[in-house]
Amino acid sequence: MRTISWSEADGQIHLLDQTRLPLETVELVIDDHHQLIDAIKRLAIRGAPALGVAGAFGVALIAKNAERDSWSAASIDKAVDELRTARPTAVNLAWGVDQVRPLLKDGAAAVLKRALEMAAEDGRANRAMGSLGADHLIELLAKSGKSGDFTILTHCNTGALATTEWGTALGMIQELNDRGKLREVFADETRPLLQGARLTAWELAQIGIPYRILPDGAAASALFAGLIDAVAIGADRIARNGDSANKIGSLAVAVAAHAVGVPFFVVAPESTVDRSLADGSQIEIEFRDDREVTEFAGVPTAPKGSRTYNPAFDVTPARLITAVVTEKKVYRVSEGESL
Amino acid sequence: MRTISWSEADGQIHLLDQTRLPLETVELVIDDHHQLIDAIKRLAIRGAPALGVAGAFGVALIAKNAERDSWSAASIDKAVDELRTARPTAVNLAWGVDQVRPLLKDGAAAVLKRALEMAAEDGRANRAMGSLGADHLIELLAKSGKSGDFTILTHCNTGALATTEWGTALGMIQELNDRGKLREVFADETRPLLQGARLTAWELAQIGIPYRILPDGAAASALFAGLIDAVAIGADRIARNGDSANKIGSLAVAVAAHAVGVPFFVVAPESTVDRSLADGSQIEIEFRDDREVTEFAGVPTAPKGSRTYNPAFDVTPARLITAVVTEKKVYRVSEGESL
Repeated sequence: MRTISWSEADGQIHLLDQTRLPLETVELVIDDHHQLIDAIKRLAIRGAPALGVAGAFGVALIAKNAERDSWSAASIDKAVDELRTARPTAVNLAWGVDQVRPLLKDGAAAVLKRALEMAAEDGRANRAMGSLGADHLIELLAKSGKSGDFTILTHCNTGALATTEWGTALGMIQELNDRGKLREVFADETRPLLQGARLTAWELAQIGIPYRILPDGAAASALFAGLIDAVAIGADRIARNGDSANKIGSLAVAVAAHAVGVPFFVVAPESTVDRSLADGSQIEIEFRDDREVTEFAGVPTAPKGSRTYNPAFDVTPARLITAVVTEKKVYRVSEGESL
Repeated sequence: MRTISWSEADGQIHLLDQTRLPLETVELVIDDHHQLIDAIKRLAIRGAPALGVAGAFGVALIAKNAERDSWSAASIDKAVDELRTARPTAVNLAWGVDQVRPLLKDGAAAVLKRALEMAAEDGRANRAMGSLGADHLIELLAKSGKSGDFTILTHCNTGALATTEWGTALGMIQELNDRGKLREVFADETRPLLQGARLTAWELAQIGIPYRILPDGAAASALFAGLIDAVAIGADRIARNGDSANKIGSLAVAVAAHAVGVPFFVVAPESTVDRSLADGSQIEIEFRDDREVTEFAGVPTAPKGSRTYNPAFDVTPARLITAVVTEKKVYRVSEGESL
């Protein structure tokens, strides 16, 4: 089952419900943009590149339903706007919507055609950034005398589940594995929703790459103990100077990696770069529900009524990022290169 | 109910089972050192100072049972050794055992008398270090123009539940509250066993101090956002140069606090200082079961068979610690002062 696909058979969006993994493999069949917005908000689908494709497919779904039920132009606009802003930090969702929105005037078929092309392009882009990133990492580690057997730490999930196929940071890790350079992956569990423990571990187990799951707070310990050769993560929005918003906990890993001189890579498609922002201070951060922190699987983990500090993302300053890798090039942002 | 006490009525150790909080308040009545060792290993009782008292009470229990059942000297020695090494990183447990062990020759009553004195001394020491720490913190923050309304971030649990009463770092936080200087506590949830979310939040709610719980990975975000005036944590073992072992995740907070110039305090009794160790590299770190990371409340959070990196502690280098505060004095370890 793919993370997200458009079914030609039924004209609906098919999603793998990521909130149910790794315990169950459940497919969601989506025929209405409200259902899609709900799936995005509760993270049944997540990951910047996958959200880009979800945005495009979502507009295709709106266009199809609008033709069938003769919606007004205002209703179409309202539906597209709601979809576009379902999650504020992830720029790819808005980007995906904006790519196909101008085609609405050409009809549902034109929107769908472009959305399907975008899904295919995402897969190609992932392969390209994985290859560029692996080249750069191998060259960089060779300078410190390491020629292989790399242990890479990653945070959250950036694999096929976060994209349409292959993955961004996890795509680069698979590329290293295919080249015989990988020893093991340290996968941060990634609280509060455990996308590392649930999703990254599941993907690595399926591929057959050795991994260990660690509490987010243990990443600094692994880095200071010299167990990690490099860190590779994804991004949800990257400012022009390289400041990168990614899943909460990324910043803590970046600060620790920097303190011990371990290279830190952000791997993401060009569509994640928001060139309208000079730096990360302008990135809006989404805060999420207290219950993500105060409950697990319906069991309370904190006293009733506890408030939380639960940002979905943090912003890693460019000075802590060795390189941002896209499908186009490797940007050495800590050396001042901008995007 | 107290964290740990010796009941004169039944000659047994009474413990509050901390694995059941905050959902249930369950008392364990312990009449046998095997039960005590089990309670220590599964963290029904934890926290460096509380473990010191548990070690002393445990020897008292062994002495009592040895007298009743006429144990051999070898059996007594074996029981005391097993208790002493139930958790390798926490120096206080061994310290507590060693304080009363020489009194075994004087009989069970002599051991118990000293153990009860130690419990009382722990409470007094906590009050003293809280007061010294609060003085120093207030003076330090005044230099940057802050005279009150402090937000303090803490990690794991260092309150009455980690001691016999009052607490170490949380004792200092209560002292700040009593002096009208405290605005709010940011309590790291502290994976994997959530002692922050379960225990610190519970204690703060009982006292009536405002708090927010955050995923461990969000502490760097809060620090970089300027929300935190100071960090205060406890310790399980402190080397002579000030390097401090504490609950996993402490190091990540220290690195982030240092990066943004926020003062970082370690608050612990003198019994936590292991002057036989020149620095933290010699501190043995306990690794714990995979299941602490791969399950929650019996629900799997990761694919079956996943391995983990699950150290119970990390070591924060002295250079990242503004001060180690004990009941005796404030050691400015990042400035090179040794203990």
